[in-house]
Amino acid sequence: MSKPVIAIDMGGTKIKIGIVHQDTILASASIDSYSGEGLRPRLPLIKEIVDKLLERAETPITSVSGLGISSPGIVDNHRKMILSVDKKFGDAPGINLEEWCLLTFGIPFFIENDARSALLGEWKHGNAKDADNVILMTLGTGVGSAAVTEGQLLRGKHFTAGIMGGHFVINYKGSLCNCGNKGCVETEASTWNITNIAKSEKSFTKSRLADFPVIDYELIFRLAEEGDATAIHLREQSLQAWSASAINLIHAYDPEILVLTGGIMASSTHIIPYIRKQVETHTWTPWGKVDIREGKFPATAALLGIAHVVNNG
Amino acid sequence: MSKPVIAIDMGGTKIKIGIVHQDTILASASIDSYSGEGLRPRLPLIKEIVDKLLERAETPITSVSGLGISSPGIVDNHRKMILSVDKKFGDAPGINLEEWCLLTFGIPFFIENDARSALLGEWKHGNAKDADNVILMTLGTGVGSAAVTEGQLLRGKHFTAGIMGGHFVINYKGSLCNCGNKGCVETEASTWNITNIAKSEKSFTKSRLADFPVIDYELIFRLAEEGDATAIHLREQSLQAWSASAINLIHAYDPEILVLTGGIMASSTHIIPYIRKQVETHTWTPWGKVDIREGKFPATAALLGIAHVVNNG
Repeated sequence: MSKPVIAIDMGGTKIKIGIVHQDTILASASIDSYSGEGLRPRLPLIKEIVDKLLERAETPITSVSGLGISSPGIVDNHRKMILSVDKKFGDAPGINLEEWCLLTFGIPFFIENDARSALLGEWKHGNAKDADNVILMTLGTGVGSAAVTEGQLLRGKHFTAGIMGGHFVINYKGSLCNCGNKGCVETEASTWNITNIAKSEKSFTKSRLADFPVIDYELIFRLAEEGDATAIHLREQSLQAWSASAINLIHAYDPEILVLTGGIMASSTHIIPYIRKQVETHTWTPWGKVDIREGKFPATAALLGIAHVVNNG
Repeated sequence: MSKPVIAIDMGGTKIKIGIVHQDTILASASIDSYSGEGLRPRLPLIKEIVDKLLERAETPITSVSGLGISSPGIVDNHRKMILSVDKKFGDAPGINLEEWCLLTFGIPFFIENDARSALLGEWKHGNAKDADNVILMTLGTGVGSAAVTEGQLLRGKHFTAGIMGGHFVINYKGSLCNCGNKGCVETEASTWNITNIAKSEKSFTKSRLADFPVIDYELIFRLAEEGDATAIHLREQSLQAWSASAINLIHAYDPEILVLTGGIMASSTHIIPYIRKQVETHTWTPWGKVDIREGKFPATAALLGIAHVVNNG
């Protein structure tokens, strides 16, 4: 029997913290990330909340098998370091998180990329259970991805295989992304850039979007439903970009199942049918159709996945 | 000691036939493909040429271990069938090539995708020898790719993993490709489509390109060198498209080495430095730089690779 785990999911907007036992979250909480200010200032509060959650879950630290962090960016799971981040938690690569964990809690430490963690959650406990070839695409602050091929979680020589779906070029004449690349999926359609994209539309000032200082996809989908022409255009363009991204991931990794998850998925029932139709029309899959599914754990897949890493490596 | 092999590379323009022993081509010949007319009409001539080559190589058929075909499209290497082709040899999925081989030569039959075969040739004998993480990109009639990850040739559940590089979307607002997808690398920049692309340029009629009924990259690179503005524009656009494709393949498979090969590579020493610079500027590889190399066997990598398949499975 595996033991409970302290699981931390470093999202761009919220840091989620949970005490996880197999596929059950015994207790959880989330705090604002303020990820632009870095991770270091958040560590004392994280420690405090972990202690409270352990108490609430009636789980003494001595019965916990380890602490796992699900992190954005490129993560070396052997040396247990964050190698590179492109916009969130800029100080994270310089923090010795394993040392922090050992000094603070005295338990083993594990770390993995956030999309890989979410895929592990869905693969071990959720809507991709037991399939041998699965990809996951997350639509959130950015666009993330991960892949399981022939029964193995794809990590690659330098830990970047599978997780770069948001940084595939889908518009090679497009503009620069945070990552240094041009015309990435993320620059074309993701929460961190949608305010800029909207403002660059000629029709922006005539749109109701102009009433809002910060634009997110919940707003775009809502105003599009209400008939705002600019919002309809941006919704269509973003759906096309995400569909192209899904097609590229399918062409790259040859999966049976594509799991779609992330914050944006909550805003709309449009997204899955749209991407499904585009994928069925445009992917070259003579064997049949990729099964496109919503994630079973939209809010907690990464917590479940990193807990699996702690107990199974 | 492995035995000699009959190796056949079904290119869009030429079919190459060789008697191959390990990394040595004992005898070879090539014939026009007329791939638009299908493969079946070519089989009698292929048989005739194989017989002549065996004679020239002083290799009796009884000492040959098998016959291997390197084919475009999606290839099932277990059931030894071509599953789908997008433009060349349209009749090939309906031909029982294993039966043809057994009835004609009485020896074992093997088949693999052409880009995978070329990668095997470079990986076993050429410029990617013994590396564990390699991708290959071929610029020829179309754009092909293949990947070795963590020491394994990537094939995938439905035999499409690694080989779809030419059909990754790099222009999601682009036009339809032969494969049914939109804005693929191949539609944006490859020999089969460059005549159409050139003719759609507004400046085309003022360009010297308009003097030629069929346009290929040798012509474009030559006229660009001579200062033709439209040719310069098309050269730049194609180099950008191939660079985006290289970046996507690197982001997908996390290689140490990218091997560039194919017919177009012969036309220009511009291509490798251009793609290298774009890759170094735009890929997200905090660990260092992907080593971008020309293939060691630009004309024969696929013959060497499929010979390896015959002797090693």
